[in-house]
Amino acid sequence: MSQKFIIVGGVAGGATAAARLRRISEDVEIVLVERGEYISFANCGLPYYIGETIKDRSKLLVQTVKGMSDRFNLDIRNLSEVLCVDPKNKKVTIKNLQSGKEYKESYDKLLLSPGAKPIIPPIPGLSENEVLFTLRNIPDTDKIKKYIDTNHPKKAIVIGGGFIGIEMAENLLERGVEVTIIEMTKQIMAPIDLEMASILHGNIKEKGVNLILENGVQAFANKGKKVILSDGTEIETDMTILSIGVKSENELAKVAGLELGERGGIVVNEYLQTSNEDIYAVGDAVEVVDYISGKKAMIPLAGPANRQGRIAANNMMGKKEKYHGTLGTSIAKVFDLTVAATGNNEKTLKRLGVSYEVVHIHPSSHAGYYPEAVPIALKLIFDKETGKILGAQAIGADGVDKRIDVIATAIKGGLKVNDLTNLELSYAPPYSSAKDPVNMAGYVASNIIEGELEMVQWHEIDEIVKDGGLLIDVREPMEREFGYIKGSLNIPLDEIRNRLDSLPKEQTIYVSCQVGLRGYLASRILKNSGYIVKNVDGGFKTYSSVFRSV
Amino acid sequence: MSQKFIIVGGVAGGATAAARLRRISEDVEIVLVERGEYISFANCGLPYYIGETIKDRSKLLVQTVKGMSDRFNLDIRNLSEVLCVDPKNKKVTIKNLQSGKEYKESYDKLLLSPGAKPIIPPIPGLSENEVLFTLRNIPDTDKIKKYIDTNHPKKAIVIGGGFIGIEMAENLLERGVEVTIIEMTKQIMAPIDLEMASILHGNIKEKGVNLILENGVQAFANKGKKVILSDGTEIETDMTILSIGVKSENELAKVAGLELGERGGIVVNEYLQTSNEDIYAVGDAVEVVDYISGKKAMIPLAGPANRQGRIAANNMMGKKEKYHGTLGTSIAKVFDLTVAATGNNEKTLKRLGVSYEVVHIHPSSHAGYYPEAVPIALKLIFDKETGKILGAQAIGADGVDKRIDVIATAIKGGLKVNDLTNLELSYAPPYSSAKDPVNMAGYVASNIIEGELEMVQWHEIDEIVKDGGLLIDVREPMEREFGYIKGSLNIPLDEIRNRLDSLPKEQTIYVSCQVGLRGYLASRILKNSGYIVKNVDGGFKTYSSVFRSV
Ligand SMILES: Cc1cc2nc3c(=O)[nH]c(=O)nc-3n(C[C@H](O)[C@H](O)[C@H](O)COP(=O)(O)OP(=O)(O)OC[C@H]3O[C@@H](n4cnc5c(N)ncnc54)[C@H](O)[C@@H]3O)c2cc1C
Ligand SMILES: Cc1cc2nc3c(=O)[nH]c(=O)nc-3n(C[C@H](O)[C@H](O)[C@H](O)COP(=O)(O)OP(=O)(O)OC[C@H]3O[C@@H](n4cnc5c(N)ncnc54)[C@H](O)[C@@H]3O)c2cc1C
Ligand SMILES: CC(C)(COP(=O)(O)OP(=O)(O)OC[C@H]1O[C@@H](n2cnc3c(N)ncnc32)[C@H](O)[C@@H]1OP(=O)(O)O)[C@@H](O)C(=O)NCCC(=O)NCCS
Ligand SMILES: CC(C)(COP(=O)(O)OP(=O)(O)OC[C@H]1O[C@@H](n2cnc3c(N)ncnc32)[C@H](O)[C@@H]1OP(=O)(O)O)[C@@H](O)C(=O)NCCC(=O)NCCS
Repeated sequence: MSQKFIIVGGVAGGATAAARLRRISEDVEIVLVERGEYISFANCGLPYYIGETIKDRSKLLVQTVKGMSDRFNLDIRNLSEVLCVDPKNKKVTIKNLQSGKEYKESYDKLLLSPGAKPIIPPIPGLSENEVLFTLRNIPDTDKIKKYIDTNHPKKAIVIGGGFIGIEMAENLLERGVEVTIIEMTKQIMAPIDLEMASILHGNIKEKGVNLILENGVQAFANKGKKVILSDGTEIETDMTILSIGVKSENELAKVAGLELGERGGIVVNEYLQTSNEDIYAVGDAVEVVDYISGKKAMIPLAGPANRQGRIAANNMMGKKEKYHGTLGTSIAKVFDLTVAATGNNEKTLKRLGVSYEVVHIHPSSHAGYYPEAVPIALKLIFDKETGKILGAQAIGADGVDKRIDVIATAIKGGLKVNDLTNLELSYAPPYSSAKDPVNMAGYVASNIIEGELEMVQWHEIDEIVKDGGLLIDVREPMEREFGYIKGSLNIPLDEIRNRLDSLPKEQTIYVSCQVGLRGYLASRILKNSGYIVKNVDGGFKTYSSVFRSV
Repeated sequence: MSQKFIIVGGVAGGATAAARLRRISEDVEIVLVERGEYISFANCGLPYYIGETIKDRSKLLVQTVKGMSDRFNLDIRNLSEVLCVDPKNKKVTIKNLQSGKEYKESYDKLLLSPGAKPIIPPIPGLSENEVLFTLRNIPDTDKIKKYIDTNHPKKAIVIGGGFIGIEMAENLLERGVEVTIIEMTKQIMAPIDLEMASILHGNIKEKGVNLILENGVQAFANKGKKVILSDGTEIETDMTILSIGVKSENELAKVAGLELGERGGIVVNEYLQTSNEDIYAVGDAVEVVDYISGKKAMIPLAGPANRQGRIAANNMMGKKEKYHGTLGTSIAKVFDLTVAATGNNEKTLKRLGVSYEVVHIHPSSHAGYYPEAVPIALKLIFDKETGKILGAQAIGADGVDKRIDVIATAIKGGLKVNDLTNLELSYAPPYSSAKDPVNMAGYVASNIIEGELEMVQWHEIDEIVKDGGLLIDVREPMEREFGYIKGSLNIPLDEIRNRLDSLPKEQTIYVSCQVGLRGYLASRILKNSGYIVKNVDGGFKTYSSVFRSV
């Protein structure tokens, strides 16, 4: 007798699983149930359709119900909601949202890929807010776009500085709307750390976005036309996008008695089976294992959802394939910059109490002598004892995705920071340098591990100088006109050898330069001449992305 | 007593080693001897300066003699040639090319980084050729540029379709010169295979380059203004660039009695020591171990030269660092396309008698629904038994460098093709797809390994059809108007299930589509319905890049 599979959710995880199931067998029955009208749409493209970078709405529909049914011989039931799961009798109750009819459908194996939904906190005035939007699917998108097309809003507020918030800010600006972002923490883009996010803060402000940090929304007033912030500030707006994060669509699982994690994610084992062995779950709805820390995490991204969908399908068909956890590689376009990250950030590592070391470098996207080379701010986080790569973050106008992908691959290959120096990456002047930025990050990290280089961080140096530490800025005097770290003494690198006698041997000498390279060279000269020395990691460039220069 | 190091050659390998030596110690004496006027210049940028993409000549000089001497406290002797090495007495003879004076200099350790020189075969008429150029260094560049600036040549011939030849063709065209490339083999760009190179052949012809394959130069006549090809063709030209490859600058090593390899490369051990333990050698001059095959190879690239320079410096200072061989990751811009490769190609594997499997895919550089997505032709070569990645090649207008770098990193991480499916690469619509092209190549390769998919190659299918094989083209009828494989029967994918009865079960059914994906889907339907089936790898796209369509 042929098996019958029911899949809940017809987009990233669900549609992928359905296609894969059919590719494995012509004999199984596959029922795909989707609450919405559309299956298999491009969630990730939605903001760009609103911004009209993607002009053709039909492009958002990667597959249609008819197209996918025909191709994969699927029984697709859209506009149908699975109301509940009865694991004992292996049945689901489905409601046809058009007819209102409810019916039961039996399964041999069930796959849940219901995704996540925007978090909507109980802000006073919420229910009266007539201009509040969230963005998850095509109807949400249509609503927002129609509002803009019809009402030509002048001002918008975006609550939350995550990926979707930032993408929406950019796309609203693209439509001529004045945008204010309100973010509760010190920084936008949670996957990266503060000093990296600070680069973005500067950039988006330059682009004309009004960025309000460390402030939340207290209430909506005037049918949503007024937003009142935690500190009492009142802002007029024509529309508000609420994008402070998502939470697992876990109701079905909860009611069915499946185990849920602390943050509400459906708990699955390595085979993506829930606590009921005939029910699999994937995507934004599930709790995953963080590939770096081994801890439980919620990482709602399309790549993992797709990958999990395929693995779950394999396992539903009796293969035994493990899902090895999620690294959390993520990326976003922020106006003319790209920001990307992989692995753990400092915030996470601190929270977990993991010890780590950090390097910041500022190499060129490609050979400096070839036109259009631009700087990349690249941060590498690693374990000083083992050389294990813990994470990386990068920001720049070009070549950022490549470097983060290379590091993500190195992590999956179990490569250490020292191995990064031996990566053979493609080099011709339009693409990279003979020592690629990733090689370079590897060199700097290896030097730390081998004790050839000691660093202090951007957030430590002010305190050190205040406490009487000696900081030497080894840049040229002219460079200091654009700013320097307060209290630093200027001795250009090429004069250091001649001025050794004037420097103290009994106290640590701190050196800094523009990006860290000349500081490193100075630190080598000093160290090899018997001085104790530490370099300011990332130089003035990293420092000044956070602090205002003198 | 402080050690004394002499370095022969002041560019990629040599300058890097000098800098690293000084960073390790302030106490050693470092003499850098360079035959030319310039050290530390950007060889790789030379063609682009000729083409005026790089406008400022000084940009080619990454470091100057004065700058580098001051910064690294080096004794740099440019315009000085090392004439011979006396390993027994640990002395070199140096000739000051300005004064003509010769003198001896002793060393504790010697590093050879003399590079390579263009191969110039004894073509009749060569010595009378007044318009023949080769390109290796700044003087060569100045000569070519001056000739173009002054004589405004109308026509140029480039002999040799390697990286430098192709880059020169592009840059000459950029200067308004009509270019003919003459290449002895069937294809340009040796690191890639024929079907991939064919994509470039089409492209450069479209750009207006006259491409002559499988033809060599027999003789020069008329002071070089006429070039006579092997087949007798005569071509008029105003200038000729000879770029058929380079050979090791091995004279010093040879005379010093150091071991040389079959192809003339200086033999070094893992520590980059020559057969004399006090003499190290790096860069284009040395024979390396091919990282994939473990065989000896000559791989003259800047990345390896730089890396080896640093490793040699470490070892000269008593560290023990191994060089693990060269993967040969390479890249070039070919007009609006990028071509890149890593590892071994089919030609090499065949020559070595290694068995391998190949997949060709044609994914988009990023999400298709986001503007400016372009196709990438990606070829992955792997061992079917072990899943080991043997090599990869890619061509496209965007995102090629990233995918090859990721695969090069995967190789260094010892990842198998199956692991490529689990790489977590950064995805947002402007950068990639939820399943990145590298993931996708991994899926296809894994399907082959797991027996879910059998392929035939572009070069096999014509023969198969001629011998009576049944080939089904599963594309839509309209698509066939732009060409199809001769003898193929058209049954669109979505009709296959309904027409199963008309297909034979006793003979292999071959399927093909545009890029291989729909062929795969058809092959799954057929296979799961009890048919024997093989898919044409890469579909009509790979096939038609070599063969003219019907
Ligand atoms: C605006 C936006 C931009 C994004 N950008 C990116 C990006 O750039 N990169 C990236 O990696 N990720 C991005 N994401 C996240 C990505 O889209 C998700 O990680 C991915 O879609 C998750 O897949 P999923 O299958 O778990 O859930 P979904 O793709 O959301 O699919 C779940 C489906 O299940 C349906 N469903 C839920 N409950 C039921 C039920 N009871 N019965 C029937 N159907 C049900 C829902 O209607 C929904 O269609 C973005 C998301 C959004 C909203
Ligand atoms: C036009 C061009 C484009 C290129 N493009 C690329 C590219 O895009 N990507 C890439 O990876 N590689 C490229 N390369 C190759 C790259 O430049 C070389 O691999 C690299 O420079 C090799 O470094 P090396 O130190 O071995 O030799 P070199 O950099 O050539 O340095 C050798 C130096 O030694 C000197 N020398 C030799 N003999 C003596 C002696 N007896 N006494 C004193 N001095 C001596 C020479 O004058 C020379 O300056 C390109 C090369 C050229 C010529
Ligand atoms: C459209 C959708 C249903 C497609 O699912 P899919 O069929 O698994 O994916 P693709 O069309 O990319 O095809 C991948 C399959 O083709 C195979 N393939 C791809 N190119 C191939 C080629 N050239 N030759 C042979 N096989 C090929 C792959 O091996 C894979 O098959 P497998 O899983 O059996 O190994 C699903 O991806 C989807 O719904 N996407 C939109 C929703 C979404 O992801 N949203 C979030 C991001 S915006
Ligand atoms: C210019 C040249 C001499 C520089 O050599 P170099 O000093 O080794 O290289 P870089 O200037 O890139 O600096 C790299 C060093 O700085 C360190 N570094 C780089 N950025 C740093 C940062 N932000 N903080 C701390 N250290 C940093 C690296 O660790 C490395 O030091 P190490 O080797 O001791 O570990 C050499 O690369 C050269 O001659 N190049 C031109 C010739 C050439 O390569 N041609 C072929 C290609 S066109």
